Amino acid sequence: MGSTREKIAVDAMGGDYAPAEIVAGAIRASEELDIEILLVGDPHQIEAVLQNHPTSRKLEIVPAEDVISMHEEPLTSLRRKPKASINVAMDLVKNKRASGVVSAGHSGAAMAAGLLRLGRLKGIARPAIGAVFPTLMANKSVIVLDVGANVDCRPKYLEQFALMGKVYSQYALGVEDPKVGLLNIGEESCKGNDVALQTYQLLEENPHIPFIGNAEGRDVLSGQFDVIVCDGFVGNILLKFAEAIGDVLLQTMREELPYGLRGQLGTALLKPNLRRIKQRIDHAEHGGGLLLGVDGICIISHGSSQAPSIFNAIRLAKEAIDHQVLERIQTSYAQSQGQSVASVQSSTES
Amino acid sequence: MGSTREKIAVDAMGGDYAPAEIVAGAIRASEELDIEILLVGDPHQIEAVLQNHPTSRKLEIVPAEDVISMHEEPLTSLRRKPKASINVAMDLVKNKRASGVVSAGHSGAAMAAGLLRLGRLKGIARPAIGAVFPTLMANKSVIVLDVGANVDCRPKYLEQFALMGKVYSQYALGVEDPKVGLLNIGEESCKGNDVALQTYQLLEENPHIPFIGNAEGRDVLSGQFDVIVCDGFVGNILLKFAEAIGDVLLQTMREELPYGLRGQLGTALLKPNLRRIKQRIDHAEHGGGLLLGVDGICIISHGSSQAPSIFNAIRLAKEAIDHQVLERIQTSYAQSQGQSVASVQSSTES
Repeated sequence: MGSTREKIAVDAMGGDYAPAEIVAGAIRASEELDIEILLVGDPHQIEAVLQNHPTSRKLEIVPAEDVISMHEEPLTSLRRKPKASINVAMDLVKNKRASGVVSAGHSGAAMAAGLLRLGRLKGIARPAIGAVFPTLMANKSVIVLDVGANVDCRPKYLEQFALMGKVYSQYALGVEDPKVGLLNIGEESCKGNDVALQTYQLLEENPHIPFIGNAEGRDVLSGQFDVIVCDGFVGNILLKFAEAIGDVLLQTMREELPYGLRGQLGTALLKPNLRRIKQRIDHAEHGGGLLLGVDGICIISHGSSQAPSIFNAIRLAKEAIDHQVLERIQTSYAQSQGQSVASVQSSTES
Repeated sequence: MGSTREKIAVDAMGGDYAPAEIVAGAIRASEELDIEILLVGDPHQIEAVLQNHPTSRKLEIVPAEDVISMHEEPLTSLRRKPKASINVAMDLVKNKRASGVVSAGHSGAAMAAGLLRLGRLKGIARPAIGAVFPTLMANKSVIVLDVGANVDCRPKYLEQFALMGKVYSQYALGVEDPKVGLLNIGEESCKGNDVALQTYQLLEENPHIPFIGNAEGRDVLSGQFDVIVCDGFVGNILLKFAEAIGDVLLQTMREELPYGLRGQLGTALLKPNLRRIKQRIDHAEHGGGLLLGVDGICIISHGSSQAPSIFNAIRLAKEAIDHQVLERIQTSYAQSQGQSVASVQSSTES
């Protein structure tokens, strides 16, 4: 452990393109970001991939015997396979050998492993998955949570999501004065289903949450909100729709732009500009979701992640670690409860 | 009533750009589509707009004294203003002077007026708003319902939405063998919240619904499904998000494409192709939502509708009329209940 650099455990076996693309993304991260990588998985398979990158830095391998495949039932398989790569990766964080985990494997299993192995942050009723979207405003992002951890949410959970989202926006995304919205079907406080109505009330009354009102579907990407809370059912549908619509747009452009002679010439001229458009809208450029509310930094990447996504996911983990997102959530929660921070920290550590 | 052409009542006073853009769209529809238009609203204001189109066909005006503005509470204002344009327009359908209504006014008021003035189709528990989206497959659309009429839905309502959506897809969109999906957070039948789980069961067991399984957010625009059912909370958020994301892409293209000298030249060359892309993704090109389940054809357009949207909305109404969507829904519902069609029709007429 000669290095003082933060270590991030990467589940090398999780995802449609594991281990090749996972390892490739991890190598790039270890070279370009100031971090150490622990590759968790089958040493033989990982070594074979590393041999295709002979000039790269040597990465440490942490052996794991098993993998949880995409079609297994999360809880059963996590218990039946204690040495599965996702379990081993979480244990590295639990035992303080790593500061964060990145996995593109079974997302339900990653979520459950995070919850079971790391536990919840004190006071947090339910962890949530946050997804960071680009907005219409240049260099401005919005974090939407929950995008899939909880299909049914009580108003109290959504209130906590708002608090965690605010902390993330403030410290990890550097928004000085984050604005929080509640995803709903109208601007007025009287709009929405029962959960939305009650949550509106809670958010409005909480002095620790900078709530500015309901966010409609059209407001999600407007840049007007920095944090948007919703239950995991709506959030997950929105996230997957957003990912797919990027593909629809790119395909529409691919079909229509090169049409005709002028089209072919124009498209050729525009190549670098089109690449920038692709970067701005392509979901593969965004690293993954953050599991907020467990006692460790966990990034849950898309199953279809290739090297660039994994690189971005590792960067996301590093940013959360560098900005002490966990500690900030804990402090912020304690303040919202009127508790002393020291008492919460000591009880978390115990 | 010398003409045998179908008549469509257009709420000339509803929408951000009323009456000018509404009337302009209606004029175009009366010239290009084989229909008659009844313009409902303040005769003075409508006449003033008509004078700007001196060469156009003369449209009939049906006077209405009042308007329901965007910020009024629907039920109260509908009752307090019986002569509001939306009420008068609905009455034209009720009294068989028109076969359909198009309104870009207060959508909650349009929905309530449809329900109160026209009533529900026999057996239908809740009307739903259906929105037709383009898909990744050329010339293939998907109808998503409900996109805003019912924030909370029982499984039984969603089952009826599936039936109405199937009929619409089959007869108005011409899909021979429509495939129905349930919007959910996973493909497996065990995924989702309580309502989703119960609805899955109902859809699977109903021999009159060609249910092929859950549709995730990414599947909405894939073209794999012809009909997707969801509650009005999720559907409305999805609809508004989809509308806005088109704008995000168009703005990203406007910002990035003309960048640099090559960019400017390339963009100039691509002008016609870019126009086609805009047409394919711009929500203004799609007419509006269909209020399915009330006893009349009602198209609820976006408040920001301008002439092209209104034209498309009127075309949507005409298609629904031409293909006898109401009668088909009624027949299909009766069949699903094992009733004779004649008995349902006679009880509807009574």
